[in-house]
Amino acid sequence: MSSAALSDLDIAHLLADAARAAILPYFRKSGLATQNKLEAGFDPVTAADRAGEAAMRALLAEHRPQDGVLGEEFENIEGTSGRVWVLDPIDGTRGFISGTPTWGVLIALAETEGPILGVIDQPYIGERFVGAGGRAYMQGPRGRSNLVTRDTPRLEEAVVFTTFPEVGTTAEQHGFHNVAGRAKLTRYGMDCYAYALLAAGQIDLVIEAGLNAYDIQAPIAVIQAAGGIVTDWNGGPAHDGGRTLAAANPDLHAAALAILRTYI
Amino acid sequence: MSSAALSDLDIAHLLADAARAAILPYFRKSGLATQNKLEAGFDPVTAADRAGEAAMRALLAEHRPQDGVLGEEFENIEGTSGRVWVLDPIDGTRGFISGTPTWGVLIALAETEGPILGVIDQPYIGERFVGAGGRAYMQGPRGRSNLVTRDTPRLEEAVVFTTFPEVGTTAEQHGFHNVAGRAKLTRYGMDCYAYALLAAGQIDLVIEAGLNAYDIQAPIAVIQAAGGIVTDWNGGPAHDGGRTLAAANPDLHAAALAILRTYI
Repeated sequence: MSSAALSDLDIAHLLADAARAAILPYFRKSGLATQNKLEAGFDPVTAADRAGEAAMRALLAEHRPQDGVLGEEFENIEGTSGRVWVLDPIDGTRGFISGTPTWGVLIALAETEGPILGVIDQPYIGERFVGAGGRAYMQGPRGRSNLVTRDTPRLEEAVVFTTFPEVGTTAEQHGFHNVAGRAKLTRYGMDCYAYALLAAGQIDLVIEAGLNAYDIQAPIAVIQAAGGIVTDWNGGPAHDGGRTLAAANPDLHAAALAILRTYI
Repeated sequence: MSSAALSDLDIAHLLADAARAAILPYFRKSGLATQNKLEAGFDPVTAADRAGEAAMRALLAEHRPQDGVLGEEFENIEGTSGRVWVLDPIDGTRGFISGTPTWGVLIALAETEGPILGVIDQPYIGERFVGAGGRAYMQGPRGRSNLVTRDTPRLEEAVVFTTFPEVGTTAEQHGFHNVAGRAKLTRYGMDCYAYALLAAGQIDLVIEAGLNAYDIQAPIAVIQAAGGIVTDWNGGPAHDGGRTLAAANPDLHAAALAILRTYI
């Protein structure tokens, strides 16, 4: 099939398949090569991370040479189309090196106003969460099903996730815990998988700080296509990263935003 | 096959298969029936929990009528053999109702001195971690492999897990965070799945407080068969629950124990 005959969604699936194949051999293997990316703190980069992104970039060079590429591991490609593929081969590297099955491959296609297509893929479980063209669905161990966020009306009934209880700055931490303290249940440690659960109608809020664009663009596209809302902590666009609030519905979004915006 | 011809391990697999079939239809379904088991706090019991344990108890009544049963959801059965099957149909109910794939079915067979066989089963992923007769293995999406804990020598290189950053009492919380503060990486939110990862050589320490016997007996059997160590925070047996320390090897166990025992 010629590249022109492949839709953007076809391309996204090709990328996700290639990343799975490149990354899975490294998952739960001993001798995994890691190094500290930042001198301060623990931010491992694995050989898997680079292999996954290289595989996706090779496919984009072949099938979408006119598009830009923004990835975690290699230099940006500007492109000439005004469209950018935004890639995070392993979101949740700490989870990955711990063997937990809640890291994911993130793939988004963005235009100027933000992402229009997103994929959250969990290779080990074999789950793929997709949002594009106003439709969201997942493929997994039990087949394919549509993704629809849920209608939990009040913060007091909400299940809220963040990856680390420390969240970001002290002010950001207080903002998160002020929301979480009013919610029914708070859980930690899922990385991008929490966004997939929100799109799937399983949880209600995901609150993070200090994100990069490649951490959030795929989740934005999946969640919006499933009926949810993602903004920054001031109600503006979240696709550049930073402080993000993902909510299952407008009422919950407004309730959480009213608290969070007092902490920025 | 007559019940007499079935080994204890055969029975354990039958129980795990039955629990999978009973519980999975409820996972990620809307309208999941929950109720607060404790008036204070949030401890949901789901229809899935009761269906899973009932299915396992029916098999034990058929195949091992002489053995006792200790389960989370129904009354204890004393038995006449001196052996007890210890069941937790859904360890990690909070994770279960949030849709995360890190809850598990826990099955142990205990004699007076503690568990001699254990199974940690994750039905959605299709992973089963087994320890019995000095051998430990897993069956999962990539087939069968042996479980061996790893030889991380020092606390400063260890990956440590607990389910909630709040852990237990204030003293217990301080004990946990004193160990975690010296470790390389701390992660939250995995429930029993963290014990499976420890047995599989992916992480190094799991520290918990306030456990019940049915939370820890299957992990003890799996981890010990994989070469690890599980005790309470004073170095004594952990099979009655309470404060538990699971370690990949004796050096790490000693290092963590030296800190934790000052907090009890």
